[in-house]
Amino acid sequence: MKISIYAFATKTFVPMLKSLSNILDKGADHARASKSDPAALVNARLAPDMYPLSQQVQIACDQASDATARLTCTDAPQFDNNEKTLDELKARIAKTVDYVQSVRETAFEGAEDRKIIIPIPEDNMEFEMNGLQFLRDWALPQFYFHVVTAYDLLRHNGVDIGKRDYVSHVGVYLRQRNSPA
Amino acid sequence: MKISIYAFATKTFVPMLKSLSNILDKGADHARASKSDPAALVNARLAPDMYPLSQQVQIACDQASDATARLTCTDAPQFDNNEKTLDELKARIAKTVDYVQSVRETAFEGAEDRKIIIPIPEDNMEFEMNGLQFLRDWALPQFYFHVVTAYDLLRHNGVDIGKRDYVSHVGVYLRQRNSPA
Repeated sequence: MKISIYAFATKTFVPMLKSLSNILDKGADHARASKSDPAALVNARLAPDMYPLSQQVQIACDQASDATARLTCTDAPQFDNNEKTLDELKARIAKTVDYVQSVRETAFEGAEDRKIIIPIPEDNMEFEMNGLQFLRDWALPQFYFHVVTAYDLLRHNGVDIGKRDYVSHVGVYLRQRNSPA
Repeated sequence: MKISIYAFATKTFVPMLKSLSNILDKGADHARASKSDPAALVNARLAPDMYPLSQQVQIACDQASDATARLTCTDAPQFDNNEKTLDELKARIAKTVDYVQSVRETAFEGAEDRKIIIPIPEDNMEFEMNGLQFLRDWALPQFYFHVVTAYDLLRHNGVDIGKRDYVSHVGVYLRQRNSPA
């Protein structure tokens, strides 16, 4: 089997973004059931100087779309980062999934060797990586950081979610046992 | 460039486990500076029914070593999960890194097609995945879940850590800017 950058980029971003959208639904369920303000969840933080849920979701989306754009030299959609409700955050995720899914596997050909430069102008420095290093060492850890922190924020605020919500896409691999227990 | 399972498994687990070890050091620094009990950090949770820091670290280690073992048909070291201090958790991480690093790249040949079965005996079910699906959809999301939750736990408890601690290994890609700002 050929292992491709597409297989680790798109095929990670899409299911994990869908899981992120689903856990936001669970957040809305929680607010309804507890008669609490869903805006409190949107603005919740794990530490005073950490980003609130809204920005965790926005940055998770940006990491997925920015990585896809850099690896394939396509244009990612731009957003105003003004989502203020769980529904608006879900719409942001849906638009990001649309873009990531719209980029075909063939656009990733050779992406592992593509030179990726991330400038740090204030320090007159830059990161230079090839596409494989960029995806593995930059985009995926940062993407997971914001997805998991969004999950942790919701969990910390009492939302009833579990690992099954976080990796819901592994359900497709579940089947009756073939061998005796 | 050939993209291998090794490139996404070992080359993710090792640097991220080292980062995890480093943020535990920052936790110890914080406890010393604030004259607080480091055991409070080890036992801290983000929600009453979430695992404490100790188990987040143990499971992150287990995900890395279990994935390496399954993908290469080697034997992972077994642990008693009885770490009670930050130093003991750091030793657990170090032993896990030793094992993961000890498995050579050649042992991963064909791992993408290896059949991986994860039994769920209580439901008489099982997950069946190939090695690529297992690494991408099971091991990596779970590994990142526990690494990031450990980070979030420390951050929530006032430990002074940031993204630079979380992805410290991207420092090797940093250099002076070549092009004018």
